[in-house]
Amino acid sequence: MSDFAATKALFQLPEGLIYLDGNSLGARPKATTQRLETLLSDEWGEMLITGWNKAGWNDKPGTVGNRIAGLIGAEAGHVVMGDTLSIKIYQALAAALKMNPDRRVILSDSGNFPSDLYMAQGLIGLLDRDYELRVVAPEDVAANITNEVAVTMITQVDYRTGRIHDMKALTAKAHAVGAITVWDLAHSAGAIPVDLVDANADFAAGCTYKYLNGGPGAPAFIYVAPRHVDTVEPALSGWLGHEAPFAFDPDYRPGFGIERMRVGTPPVLQLVALEVALDIWDMVDMNDVRAKSIALTDLFIQEVEAACDMVTLASPRDGNARGSQVSFAFEDGYAAMQAFIARGVIGDFRAPNIMRFGFTPLYIDEADVIKAVEIISDVMNNRLWDAPQYKIRNAVT
Amino acid sequence: MSDFAATKALFQLPEGLIYLDGNSLGARPKATTQRLETLLSDEWGEMLITGWNKAGWNDKPGTVGNRIAGLIGAEAGHVVMGDTLSIKIYQALAAALKMNPDRRVILSDSGNFPSDLYMAQGLIGLLDRDYELRVVAPEDVAANITNEVAVTMITQVDYRTGRIHDMKALTAKAHAVGAITVWDLAHSAGAIPVDLVDANADFAAGCTYKYLNGGPGAPAFIYVAPRHVDTVEPALSGWLGHEAPFAFDPDYRPGFGIERMRVGTPPVLQLVALEVALDIWDMVDMNDVRAKSIALTDLFIQEVEAACDMVTLASPRDGNARGSQVSFAFEDGYAAMQAFIARGVIGDFRAPNIMRFGFTPLYIDEADVIKAVEIISDVMNNRLWDAPQYKIRNAVT
Repeated sequence: MSDFAATKALFQLPEGLIYLDGNSLGARPKATTQRLETLLSDEWGEMLITGWNKAGWNDKPGTVGNRIAGLIGAEAGHVVMGDTLSIKIYQALAAALKMNPDRRVILSDSGNFPSDLYMAQGLIGLLDRDYELRVVAPEDVAANITNEVAVTMITQVDYRTGRIHDMKALTAKAHAVGAITVWDLAHSAGAIPVDLVDANADFAAGCTYKYLNGGPGAPAFIYVAPRHVDTVEPALSGWLGHEAPFAFDPDYRPGFGIERMRVGTPPVLQLVALEVALDIWDMVDMNDVRAKSIALTDLFIQEVEAACDMVTLASPRDGNARGSQVSFAFEDGYAAMQAFIARGVIGDFRAPNIMRFGFTPLYIDEADVIKAVEIISDVMNNRLWDAPQYKIRNAVT
Repeated sequence: MSDFAATKALFQLPEGLIYLDGNSLGARPKATTQRLETLLSDEWGEMLITGWNKAGWNDKPGTVGNRIAGLIGAEAGHVVMGDTLSIKIYQALAAALKMNPDRRVILSDSGNFPSDLYMAQGLIGLLDRDYELRVVAPEDVAANITNEVAVTMITQVDYRTGRIHDMKALTAKAHAVGAITVWDLAHSAGAIPVDLVDANADFAAGCTYKYLNGGPGAPAFIYVAPRHVDTVEPALSGWLGHEAPFAFDPDYRPGFGIERMRVGTPPVLQLVALEVALDIWDMVDMNDVRAKSIALTDLFIQEVEAACDMVTLASPRDGNARGSQVSFAFEDGYAAMQAFIARGVIGDFRAPNIMRFGFTPLYIDEADVIKAVEIISDVMNNRLWDAPQYKIRNAVT
């Protein structure tokens, strides 16, 4: 049985703050301080260039990738770290389109994170052919998986509502019509149990600064199914994805397996911070995390609805259909969220009217939920959000 | 006058080691320890998600980019940080090809770093048209800039030999025939004075972990000339390059100016480490750095040639035609370099036979050069490299 009191003690959680935004940026594992100091002084400082071998820096995209694989039901050796999620989506999408050269439709849905849609738009603009990004409502995805579709590009857990797509069913439907699947796991990895092997997914990518707690700007990961990995053509064919990077051949030859999805020099400081977070993930079972996540989110929904009749649940009520977040729609949601934040409850706002709260069992417990609801109830029932200082929009929220 | 004794004292330089590989990975500024600790504890730890605004994380790609601009003769507001150099080359190349839609030749040279060639090959493979990557000898670049050329993609300073291309002359020649220029500054930034404005360059990109000392995996930078930046079409159209990232619009609209070249979430830990290194750069004048670099490399060439008649200079003898490195060709160069390293002189080896030594005035002085030559001379004249342990090739060197 996972000990969540033990994991909570390993995070820096500011006094007086209830942090319900780990779905945007995870909290900091305390041990990152010591580990980064060692990296700086004993590795970069003393080993200098030899750290790429001696300290294993060059292997980290693969070794860290293997640890992520364990959290998303992937085969070891089929996940590699690097770049950002947008870049990894582009990589997967470009490779998938090459595998279906006679089709022209990329199917996605309006619940997808906009950056995925943007990357597809940029790729289509570059290809300058008759490709089409077809964006349908989330509930219409299945019906739109037709034999026109080259690739489905779908985020499993909706960033606004937390609604979970059925990865296995949609993948099966895609395969039945000859389409390739690209899954975005941004709000899945560390949030819900994911089983890429069981779902028979083709490509997947995700970020590590949300539920995985890798820190601001932590690198992304990409997964390629074993049946594809030795034949995919990397469009972003950087030297560290080459079969022999240090041969300095003038011609690109893709590296062995997932290594070909590497591009440039890996961000060692970020990877090391992420490793510290993964040490905490080693202490828990994902099924326990999920059970506690459902308990926390169920409790939050029940208590908020009991206390505040002016908000509308925007997440699925069924815990099994919901990621590790709860969203409520409220017309003045932006101002309300600022008022919560001013009183120590950190969630975030997503346009046009979504107040979003993330629940991270590694460091959030029932007592936090109860305290958060007290503050939310006070703000909502006493219209404390209706003050000018809460209505000024920041650049980043 | 720049005080290089003062800058040297700010780096961690291991006792008994002479580090002539700052052209591959720069040494560590001691102040990174304290600054990273502050980032971890006071920013990530305490501010959590609000650090993106409160600690200025989201602005760092631009604010750090402005500091890099000052080192490469670029206009403020026209350099932005992110991703890796390979990705930034791809971004520049894709944008440049769009600007010259009727031409099909990308001109580069065999002295270019292979990853640039690989990225061009990947891009061409994706475009699936009759594009051609035309790779000529470095000395033939000028003659091959014809009106067939859409884009020249050239690394200013050759990574193996240190030979400097004439950026201003080649750019003028390219413009005269209607070609766009993409300059790779990997071995230029922090190594030699660069003046992108004077050279009238179109695009440039570089890395920050070499002469700039940003640390392993430090982010890349990209420059777009003011005359292009508001019209370039980003192929890697990520959300942080959007005009309004937090509007979560379904359609991409490029952001204002250089911001459109941003893609995903910036690597904050790496950017902060780089800022510490840039504080040291603020203490010196690039012309002083260059003068000392030429003095150090001239001295090294003179002393090595006087002591070792079995090596052949592979770098230009004229300091003004050479970057901040010296390369010698030697048939058993791999083994010789391992023997130097075993005795505390760190350079690196580049296939097939290049022993490469980088000179970084911020922390390397004349006494280091003299000591290094003593060791090199001992190894070479006594064939100390001719031992089995020096002939085993590592994955990364």
